[in-house]
Amino acid sequence: MVAELTDIVAVLRNTPATLTALLHDLSPAWTHANYGPDTFSPFDVVGHLIHGEKTGWIPRLKIILEHGESRPFEPFDRFAMYELSKGRTLADLLDEFERCRAENLAVLQELNLTDLDLAMTGMHPALGVVTARQLLSAWVAHDLNHIHQVAKAMAYQYRDEAQPFSGYMGVMRDF
Amino acid sequence: MVAELTDIVAVLRNTPATLTALLHDLSPAWTHANYGPDTFSPFDVVGHLIHGEKTGWIPRLKIILEHGESRPFEPFDRFAMYELSKGRTLADLLDEFERCRAENLAVLQELNLTDLDLAMTGMHPALGVVTARQLLSAWVAHDLNHIHQVAKAMAYQYRDEAQPFSGYMGVMRDF
Repeated sequence: MVAELTDIVAVLRNTPATLTALLHDLSPAWTHANYGPDTFSPFDVVGHLIHGEKTGWIPRLKIILEHGESRPFEPFDRFAMYELSKGRTLADLLDEFERCRAENLAVLQELNLTDLDLAMTGMHPALGVVTARQLLSAWVAHDLNHIHQVAKAMAYQYRDEAQPFSGYMGVMRDF
Repeated sequence: MVAELTDIVAVLRNTPATLTALLHDLSPAWTHANYGPDTFSPFDVVGHLIHGEKTGWIPRLKIILEHGESRPFEPFDRFAMYELSKGRTLADLLDEFERCRAENLAVLQELNLTDLDLAMTGMHPALGVVTARQLLSAWVAHDLNHIHQVAKAMAYQYRDEAQPFSGYMGVMRDF
């Protein structure tokens, strides 16, 4: 499937409501537990997604559009949320994520990108040259990666209780 | 985490809204595409979850409570939805899943299970003896497994466009 802007936006728009529904009214035993050392809990994921909205995807897109490959993206701190989310509630983070995402989708719409814009290239500090279309596709895949990860972190909590059935569940082989 | 009934019900209650949000207003390129031969698309997953509501989890729980190990569960057809979902829309399936799940959670509440009930054992046709608590835990893990799978099936569609970033995303190593 070619990554068209309408297909990209359709998924990006759904992510805040998806995570809000998935994590609705759950105890910290679900929301604040990870699946091993240095892995993300659902709470960590939402903070990480907020940080991506603020410093990652749209700021990088603007660098591509304004500077092409001449100005590399700022490195993204994938662990910034450990500090930034401290003392906050999950409900508060989910609200902020929803707000940031809506703002960024409004920016994206205003940019009114053409296929030529999507073919423009920028410089990722670690990955090298990427196109705007690849960046936006990665934004979508990154959302899906973290939904996948939240489901994994939660399934991990029942790895013992559901163990007899684990052969039927791919998630139980993904820790 | 010990699988307590409140923790079990909290997750089970969220799944229909989670899938409805995740799949809201998406094109068939997202909803009807799988991630390789004999894998499930998001559309397949919802049909499979409905079949589980109707013939799997609660019917098996009732067999445990009424017959213990003396009557093995009916085998569950994991691929029944290929036939049952034919000609139906995803929106229709999501509505039905929401309805079936709500009905089953009402049944579960009426059963008013005690810890002694949760320790009762039944006979799985392939896995052997399982407790009611393991069955209910597997119901939860099964939901999470299929949310994990829907995110995977969707991420797969952008495996090429998002490829430069795939080293950062666990989902891209899970096909």
